[in-house]
Amino acid sequence: MNRKEKVTIYDISKKLDISAATVSRALNQNPKISKKTRELVAKTAKEMNYKQNRLAQALKSGRTNNVGVIVPYINRSFFSSVIRGIEEELNPHGYHVIICQSHEEVKNEIKQLNALLNTQIDGIFMSVSKTTQNTDHVKKALAENTPLIFFDRKIETPGVSSVVLDDFKAGFMATEHLIQEGCKKIAHLSGDINLEIYKNRYEGYIAALEKYGLNHNPEHVILTNSKIESGQQAVVRLWECEEKPDAIFSAGDYAALGAIQELKRRNIKIPEEVCVVGFSNEPFTKYMELPITSMDQTPQLMGKIAAQVFLEQVKENLAVSIEKKVVLSPELFVRESSGRSILKTAANKALL
Amino acid sequence: MNRKEKVTIYDISKKLDISAATVSRALNQNPKISKKTRELVAKTAKEMNYKQNRLAQALKSGRTNNVGVIVPYINRSFFSSVIRGIEEELNPHGYHVIICQSHEEVKNEIKQLNALLNTQIDGIFMSVSKTTQNTDHVKKALAENTPLIFFDRKIETPGVSSVVLDDFKAGFMATEHLIQEGCKKIAHLSGDINLEIYKNRYEGYIAALEKYGLNHNPEHVILTNSKIESGQQAVVRLWECEEKPDAIFSAGDYAALGAIQELKRRNIKIPEEVCVVGFSNEPFTKYMELPITSMDQTPQLMGKIAAQVFLEQVKENLAVSIEKKVVLSPELFVRESSGRSILKTAANKALL
Repeated sequence: MNRKEKVTIYDISKKLDISAATVSRALNQNPKISKKTRELVAKTAKEMNYKQNRLAQALKSGRTNNVGVIVPYINRSFFSSVIRGIEEELNPHGYHVIICQSHEEVKNEIKQLNALLNTQIDGIFMSVSKTTQNTDHVKKALAENTPLIFFDRKIETPGVSSVVLDDFKAGFMATEHLIQEGCKKIAHLSGDINLEIYKNRYEGYIAALEKYGLNHNPEHVILTNSKIESGQQAVVRLWECEEKPDAIFSAGDYAALGAIQELKRRNIKIPEEVCVVGFSNEPFTKYMELPITSMDQTPQLMGKIAAQVFLEQVKENLAVSIEKKVVLSPELFVRESSGRSILKTAANKALL
Repeated sequence: MNRKEKVTIYDISKKLDISAATVSRALNQNPKISKKTRELVAKTAKEMNYKQNRLAQALKSGRTNNVGVIVPYINRSFFSSVIRGIEEELNPHGYHVIICQSHEEVKNEIKQLNALLNTQIDGIFMSVSKTTQNTDHVKKALAENTPLIFFDRKIETPGVSSVVLDDFKAGFMATEHLIQEGCKKIAHLSGDINLEIYKNRYEGYIAALEKYGLNHNPEHVILTNSKIESGQQAVVRLWECEEKPDAIFSAGDYAALGAIQELKRRNIKIPEEVCVVGFSNEPFTKYMELPITSMDQTPQLMGKIAAQVFLEQVKENLAVSIEKKVVLSPELFVRESSGRSILKTAANKALL
């Protein structure tokens, strides 16, 4: 980048042949400086493209009242809702929330974290990317005594608090619901098992199958990402299996949507022949003509609690070695994509 | 907030009875300081919960390599896509993008802008809130010579560049499309006319009606917000009119979705009886069982161009009085909610 040197108050003082202290006072509207001089300094500063340094204040107080949030994506309802929760809890305390996205790349995450630390942020909330394998970058924040709180996606780090969903329970609940709807061959569209959240959802799924004595067919577990296409492809692969599933529990709503699209294309009836459950309760799941059953992760509550953990830390001026682990309970929203009983009730009503 | 005074290097120097300069050098790993002293200082700093001041570096260089983006909401696909465009253009130049949301409240917008200016941001991209009436807060950024660029929603401000959509053309195109599909009584779900973008869409709608000699029924223009419910309520009100519409052009996709839900509830056939066009090309518009025709605002391109305007300004180290106005062309994605011709083609195929 071809950029000129920054103009300082020393350049202005040189140009006007007055002291730097006078320039500084004039720029700060100190009444000890004559109005004429103040105007001259202001005019010269503008001409020279001088940029007043607002960081000085923050430096003095050591606080910016800014907190940073790093998420994989801002355009997922889950993450934007957590951020909303953080804002609602922190804004009344005078904090501003600054958001960065990693796009699931650890190298972006590291850069964003450093960028936030460079702005002298008062605290950091973070949900790690899919490609984050360790927390060396996080330790930098800890070394500077900047409180850091993980939410949803965490990596075990001594001294770091976290607020997460009980994803094992969520996986168990979703699968149990499908079993109770009468399904016996339940497929799972899993997320990247490197991330604890997806590993836990998968393990909850397995635990529910075992509890009800159902067979676990490894061919029925397909790795997907959070794209619609991967849900479509998963159905293509599942229907190549000798044993076709009668239900799909997807670890994400977008993959669930893709699965539904492909099932419809094959004229497979949902929920009569195949039940589908998604995960995250993205708003679109309830807009659909066939509304999708989905697991709500109580994101706003997650954000609020993460913010409360932060406030507790700064209030007590605690060292960041205080660890608090909060685990939230999921809530299943049963809709037509898996709610055979809903359908029956509607049919009964129609018969009356 | 009950917070203790910040620990400074002077406190550490006092405690260890060494000079502040030595503490500073030790903390910066200066090899002139013995390893033993460096370790002692590091240990003491940690015990006293000292927070190293990273802003000092930024102060020296006068640059943070951070740019800020202020949007009404992060959870609208349009805004998150613009941000993606800004990131894609600026990341290769070493800039980090920091995001804030105003939630359509000018008082939040002012706070966020000040918070960003306090972090010594290198530039600001902004789409104003619905409640922003003037640009006094923006002038503050200009006074500090921080480049500021409006995108999508702007307020005319001398010396400020902007990248916007040709919303008049978009309103005209959407309405003309409905006329070409054979509609004659076209209702408009408008957004808040205080915002230029919605005023322009409305005026484009009126211009198209006039061009084709169609009657403009003021009862058929309903003010909506970006919520689904307001689209539902709009249909309720429209169907109370003596003359029922045969088409709806909505200035937003969420209101269009609400309108479609209410039309279906009334067993009104789409697109046979009523055609519906939305605005923004939110991803859900194409997921629906009845995919919704919508106007694409080329958000990633908008972000990229806004970023290019910024880069031009900082490269030349120009004063912010340079003004650049970029107007982008919209693109209509015709889908089943209004594409009677699509339907016919599909029906013909079925007959073959």
